[in-house]
Amino acid sequence: MYEGAVQELIDELGRLPGIGPKSAQRIAFHILEADPEDMRKLASSIVTVKDKVKFCSICGNVTEQETCTICRDSRRDPTMICVVEESKDVIAVERTRSFRGRYHVLGGAINPIAGIGPDQLRIRELLSRLSDEQISEIIIATDPNLEGEATATYLSRMLKTLGINVTRLASGLPVGGDLEYADEITLGRAFEGRRSMS
Amino acid sequence: MYEGAVQELIDELGRLPGIGPKSAQRIAFHILEADPEDMRKLASSIVTVKDKVKFCSICGNVTEQETCTICRDSRRDPTMICVVEESKDVIAVERTRSFRGRYHVLGGAINPIAGIGPDQLRIRELLSRLSDEQISEIIIATDPNLEGEATATYLSRMLKTLGINVTRLASGLPVGGDLEYADEITLGRAFEGRRSMS
Repeated sequence: MYEGAVQELIDELGRLPGIGPKSAQRIAFHILEADPEDMRKLASSIVTVKDKVKFCSICGNVTEQETCTICRDSRRDPTMICVVEESKDVIAVERTRSFRGRYHVLGGAINPIAGIGPDQLRIRELLSRLSDEQISEIIIATDPNLEGEATATYLSRMLKTLGINVTRLASGLPVGGDLEYADEITLGRAFEGRRSMS
Repeated sequence: MYEGAVQELIDELGRLPGIGPKSAQRIAFHILEADPEDMRKLASSIVTVKDKVKFCSICGNVTEQETCTICRDSRRDPTMICVVEESKDVIAVERTRSFRGRYHVLGGAINPIAGIGPDQLRIRELLSRLSDEQISEIIIATDPNLEGEATATYLSRMLKTLGINVTRLASGLPVGGDLEYADEITLGRAFEGRRSMS
């Protein structure tokens, strides 16, 4: 145990996700020895982000205004909505440059063990968009894991009863990967989703 | 790229040691969604540590006063000094409860590639302690790697010319480890340092 302020900082850092006691200690000593001005900037970034950043009133993505840059961008196709779990996923899809529609951020995935059901996600907001906006396709891009699949199934059943065209991102072998290292579920999906070659 | 404040926070976090872009993003979103009061505490811990924490004027360990708790503790043996690289190492040795003397924190190890020579370490301060204090033994507890060994060799040569009893922590097999997984240098050291059994 260290004296007062150092130990307090180590404790606070240790509560952040993915930071164990050793990392917390290393980061605390880095902070101790770093330029005071840089560290004041880090501290104020933390406070600023809490003060300034909100969630887009349309799609739930992070923004500093009432709506996010993507929802405000008139060049984006307003008839397509890509449904993702988190704002991080918006960035991931944006990087691909394969999608020019808009997003809907659920704020997580259905996970009964963690007590997250459909009501804890921004599904009601998605439904109200469907009645307000003219939507031709909803692409479900939740994570390809248990929770993400459950959420995708739940959404697609609900949306299909409303007569909406719902698609899901393809599962299969990751590009650049090795077939022999693929797990059996991924490889099974790759077979199911096989396409005829042109 | 995110909008303003979020990206700024990700950038600031990414500059901390051992935090890559993915972790920085995860932590930033955790901060966004966490309790504002907790995050204000984290930010103020960072500022407080920079304001309050100093280095002990005797041994160089972290402290919030002029000297550290160990140097102020009259029950500690003042004739033994354990020389370590960093304050973290003081904590590690303290945890063993095998040492009841005092410390000297060098602030690093000799590393010519990084431009750290003896003058960049608190060696001058160690020498002045030797003339002021009555020292019977100096235990060198620098890291058992290239830089730590170089520093140990440098110190022991210098201190021996002053007629001081200098020792080095034993190298050998880690307790609880498997002999077959020990690297050859460690195993070699374990042979060199073998002791007769009682």
